[in-house]
Amino acid sequence: MPEGRAENDDFIGTLLARPPFHQWLRPRVVVRDPANDTLTVAIDHRPELARSPDVPDYHGGIIAALVDIAGHACLAAKLGRRIPTIDMRVDYLRAAANTGLRAMGRVLRAGVTVGVCDVEVRDDEGRLVAVGRCTFSTREPHQAPPR
Amino acid sequence: MPEGRAENDDFIGTLLARPPFHQWLRPRVVVRDPANDTLTVAIDHRPELARSPDVPDYHGGIIAALVDIAGHACLAAKLGRRIPTIDMRVDYLRAAANTGLRAMGRVLRAGVTVGVCDVEVRDDEGRLVAVGRCTFSTREPHQAPPR
Amino acid sequence: MPEGRAENDDFIGTLLARPPFHQWLRPRVVVRDPANDTLTVAIDHRPELARSPDVPDYHGGIIAALVDIAGHACLAAKLGRRIPTIDMRVDYLRAAANTGLRAMGRVLRAGVTVGVCDVEVRDDEGRLVAVGRCTFSTREPHQAPPR
Amino acid sequence: MPEGRAENDDFIGTLLARPPFHQWLRPRVVVRDPANDTLTVAIDHRPELARSPDVPDYHGGIIAALVDIAGHACLAAKLGRRIPTIDMRVDYLRAAANTGLRAMGRVLRAGVTVGVCDVEVRDDEGRLVAVGRCTFSTREPHQAPPR
Repeated sequence: MPEGRAENDDFIGTLLARPPFHQWLRPRVVVRDPANDTLTVAIDHRPELARSPDVPDYHGGIIAALVDIAGHACLAAKLGRRIPTIDMRVDYLRAAANTGLRAMGRVLRAGVTVGVCDVEVRDDEGRLVAVGRCTFSTREPHQAPPR
Repeated sequence: MPEGRAENDDFIGTLLARPPFHQWLRPRVVVRDPANDTLTVAIDHRPELARSPDVPDYHGGIIAALVDIAGHACLAAKLGRRIPTIDMRVDYLRAAANTGLRAMGRVLRAGVTVGVCDVEVRDDEGRLVAVGRCTFSTREPHQAPPR
Repeated sequence: MPEGRAENDDFIGTLLARPPFHQWLRPRVVVRDPANDTLTVAIDHRPELARSPDVPDYHGGIIAALVDIAGHACLAAKLGRRIPTIDMRVDYLRAAANTGLRAMGRVLRAGVTVGVCDVEVRDDEGRLVAVGRCTFSTREPHQAPPR
Repeated sequence: MPEGRAENDDFIGTLLARPPFHQWLRPRVVVRDPANDTLTVAIDHRPELARSPDVPDYHGGIIAALVDIAGHACLAAKLGRRIPTIDMRVDYLRAAANTGLRAMGRVLRAGVTVGVCDVEVRDDEGRLVAVGRCTFSTREPHQAPPR
């Protein structure tokens, strides 16, 4: 394995492991496909992620958070650094109960100032649960104006 | 206080208290203004909501979840029942560190099939941290086709 | 060709031809692939669609209109009737000058109350110019409540 | 009137008048309120802006274009220069027939790299027809990296 790749895997592993919120949500990278600019993040089903104590489907806020995480991770993996989210959209397509979730982020654009990613969230049977679209500010720090 | 109001307050209180995810995030209603179709939900600052162990600002997924919760709560309060989210957009405007957050949802439309809400997320000093826009499916269950 | 298909082609042809705005913009169906729930609408390059008299690239409003048209057409083709747009998002990825545009709409969901479509807008060389995501109200008229 | 203001009014007038697409759509500035970072653009009702030859309501693409124009104009007026649109969302709230439209853009954020605007589209009676939210890339040209 080339050294750069291992370093990048470390970078992505740290990216997913460090945020305190992630230590509760526990997202993990399950597939990385740099050739296609995609990266897939998974979470396991747990009762505390549900919208109701009676129905084991996911709270919309959890799915939104997962979209943000997968979109960010696929672009951060490509750029080798963290980038701030500008905005995000989530469309909820199907309720998902008693299943883990896999969110595949895909880089649509990695420009000098803006990056755009698509995210598909699927259940354990591969059915589409939600789709997301996120934009990120990709300007490198040293490009910032002096003030 | 008219009885209907108290019942509705109970409904909103339960709406915010019951979801298992909320028991971790702990959103609470701080202002309800039915005359203006607004409702404000707050969360307190806690280290586990952060994007990084080094910087006490909020993870974007937490802000997205708060937008979903406040948008849903203001429309659910108006209709007196829960409604499924169709889609949601969040724009991140300013980092927020060492502060609680207040998210004010406002009903823009409560139609027979679709409802639309705006959400403004502010820090303890009243500065705008993020804005959200959410759509919900408002069709009543008995309107569903027979299939 | 089965009769239903021919009737549907007539429906889509009329859908694209009738709106007065379309008589100016002149969108036309170039590919229809019902097996994949996609439909592609094209427009030709014309100086009056530009953002500037000096640069022959498209006005953002024209691209937004094309996204709305292609998203609507692919879902209307599947359902066999017109449906109102609930909301729409457009992400602009690349300037497009001196080129026609092709917008491929794809149905992600065609539910009882809501439909969701993705749209990819490409230039004559197949490069991605913009992406769109649209939601539509799919409730059938007879499902409407009496009032 | 201070000279700067007159120059800026000229800038906005040119901004609205020059694009070939605008010569067909004919948007015009009707109110400018720099103190509140708002700017209102209006269009008159014309049959060729309709979604159908039978019903005189607006095509969704026209409303989307108007949102783009008003969002861009309010931020461009503040910055004194044109800026590229990153993305845009439009929510359609009410059909509008036999009426002009006024779109009020309001700057929510004018940052070093990104600007965000809200747009409210109203009919002649002041009813809300649609709302929009747009992001723009505000980086100044001289800030671009050398490559």
